[in-house]
Amino acid sequence: MVTIKDIASELGVAASTVSKGLNGGSDISEQLRTAILEKAVEMGYESKRSKKTETRTLAVFIENMEYEKPDQFGYNIVLGFRQAAFKGSWDIDLVPITPEFQKDHPLPLYMVEKHYSAACMLGMALEDPWMGQMDTVQYPTVLLDNFIPVNPMVGSVGTDSSEAMEMAVSHLIELGHEKIAFLDGSAHSYISDQRMKGYLASMKKHHLPIDPNLAIYAYFVEDAAHHHVPGMLDLGATAIICGNDLLAIGAAKCCRSLGFRVPEDVSIIGYDDIPLAAKFDPPLTTIHQDLIGLGRACFYTLHAMLDDVNLNRSMLRPKLVVRRSTAPAVPRLVTKRVESHDSVLYVNPALYTQVAD
Amino acid sequence: MVTIKDIASELGVAASTVSKGLNGGSDISEQLRTAILEKAVEMGYESKRSKKTETRTLAVFIENMEYEKPDQFGYNIVLGFRQAAFKGSWDIDLVPITPEFQKDHPLPLYMVEKHYSAACMLGMALEDPWMGQMDTVQYPTVLLDNFIPVNPMVGSVGTDSSEAMEMAVSHLIELGHEKIAFLDGSAHSYISDQRMKGYLASMKKHHLPIDPNLAIYAYFVEDAAHHHVPGMLDLGATAIICGNDLLAIGAAKCCRSLGFRVPEDVSIIGYDDIPLAAKFDPPLTTIHQDLIGLGRACFYTLHAMLDDVNLNRSMLRPKLVVRRSTAPAVPRLVTKRVESHDSVLYVNPALYTQVAD
Repeated sequence: MVTIKDIASELGVAASTVSKGLNGGSDISEQLRTAILEKAVEMGYESKRSKKTETRTLAVFIENMEYEKPDQFGYNIVLGFRQAAFKGSWDIDLVPITPEFQKDHPLPLYMVEKHYSAACMLGMALEDPWMGQMDTVQYPTVLLDNFIPVNPMVGSVGTDSSEAMEMAVSHLIELGHEKIAFLDGSAHSYISDQRMKGYLASMKKHHLPIDPNLAIYAYFVEDAAHHHVPGMLDLGATAIICGNDLLAIGAAKCCRSLGFRVPEDVSIIGYDDIPLAAKFDPPLTTIHQDLIGLGRACFYTLHAMLDDVNLNRSMLRPKLVVRRSTAPAVPRLVTKRVESHDSVLYVNPALYTQVAD
Repeated sequence: MVTIKDIASELGVAASTVSKGLNGGSDISEQLRTAILEKAVEMGYESKRSKKTETRTLAVFIENMEYEKPDQFGYNIVLGFRQAAFKGSWDIDLVPITPEFQKDHPLPLYMVEKHYSAACMLGMALEDPWMGQMDTVQYPTVLLDNFIPVNPMVGSVGTDSSEAMEMAVSHLIELGHEKIAFLDGSAHSYISDQRMKGYLASMKKHHLPIDPNLAIYAYFVEDAAHHHVPGMLDLGATAIICGNDLLAIGAAKCCRSLGFRVPEDVSIIGYDDIPLAAKFDPPLTTIHQDLIGLGRACFYTLHAMLDDVNLNRSMLRPKLVVRRSTAPAVPRLVTKRVESHDSVLYVNPALYTQVAD
């Protein structure tokens, strides 16, 4: 059990200062109070400050998203939400849900039963039972990386895909690339769709031709790259933007297995900036998503919606983190197919012939 | 000078209750406290509750936007901002600015000089001197109806144009219209551009052909309609969506002067839902913008940005208000030109010939 003393020692301040921060004392700076509240949440401090008779509890429903350990995708999203909610004096209930749970508990009833004021939905899939109830939801509800039209009670939070894809495409153009492929996640995901739209708009903006065989929906898993990267290389792609970092890692491995060097022969860009992205060899250039910021944005969006502001979209600014998986484009000789015993392989002749530039 | 007693009598509660609401007393409901704070701001109550030593002041810079009287466009935006800021215990300075003022006072210096923590910009034009400084702004800054790429310190608030245009276009399609024109505001405005993109995307989504002569940038004033509406009617448009309500009023008047009835011959949709829209004959079907909500969203976006959440876009959900300026499409006979003494007029033969349907 985390105590005020633990928080104080972690921050290097007196326990009385932490106590003031937690209890709204007036003679400490806003900045310090913020640091105390954030650290308290991060360390799992159990608040006892809720003395109100009124219910002020928000639900965070979570599915298909690992969040229990610091290196898991959902961890910082949940942390950011908790921190912002704690500063705003809201209690939260974190409720892992399955499709079966959703079938057994209609959302409107569950909200009433638990006295929740509003809900945040993390990791939901479009085919989830509760998503089918979004058109008629009566409580402020925020969806991460999903969007529901029309209903003013449902808002959406995410990283701005169009700005992200524009950052990735222009970075590659600055490096001299023109044959830029996009290997996206699942065709049935809202967020894949947004990223594909962003890619197409950005290519068009820069007057680069769009080849349907270089703009492909796959899946958000490493293995999916192997089905599509050979074809992209065959068509002369010198750069591949990927829908997430796992796909990018798969793409890089696939390039190598076919004799292409990354980034010398092919530049690769990921998306998300998961911890693995910086550790991969070469470290991945990727679109950074601010996970703590996403969690906080979910809270602030709900907070505004509770004050009758019908936000339908709150988008965070992406950041392109340039590492070593992107490099200037070099002229590529035509690749040739080599039949192997179990699959079709592609060999880059540039490895064998000196390229004159 | 507004007193606590004034607020109490306006709300029909005791002065002691208002006092509790204003001073954070714990034995009143959150709902009542909210109502008290909102009413106090609406009535212009001068807060004396700020006893903090730290500066917590936000700047609201305003240009090209009338806001002093309740029926002016900016009034409710400013009111919404003030209400949300007051509930969040922030002071605000409302600062009307001109281009000359901006030239004389570089934004970064002005922010430091006045000890502002963050700024909200209302009514700025792209060519304003301060807009040129947005790329390097270091304080959280929010722009209404404008967008600046890349800089994480600058966020954008507005009504979602793509959803708005989709609502307008699908409403007309449900009424049987296919030749749907869009008469937009200035080509050099970010918001016109967003609305045009929304119109084009929505037409495409519904597989309606796009005629460049039916998708026209004009200006956000009533008179601009007269230059473009005749040509649109000549091309067979049975419905005209307009970039704002003034243009819609101009379009309706123009249709009538040419012998077309609204909505029997031509349906018209406006944008904004200014007070005039409901009073016009026929009352305008229009896209409602929640002005109080926009003002509040500006505050909440800044509030999140002050907590290190780099929001680049916070979009409000639009609402289509269906009044009497839209009606089912009727087959239109070909119009013919009639030369008049001072301009080219168009006469709708439907007024003279019985249309068989």
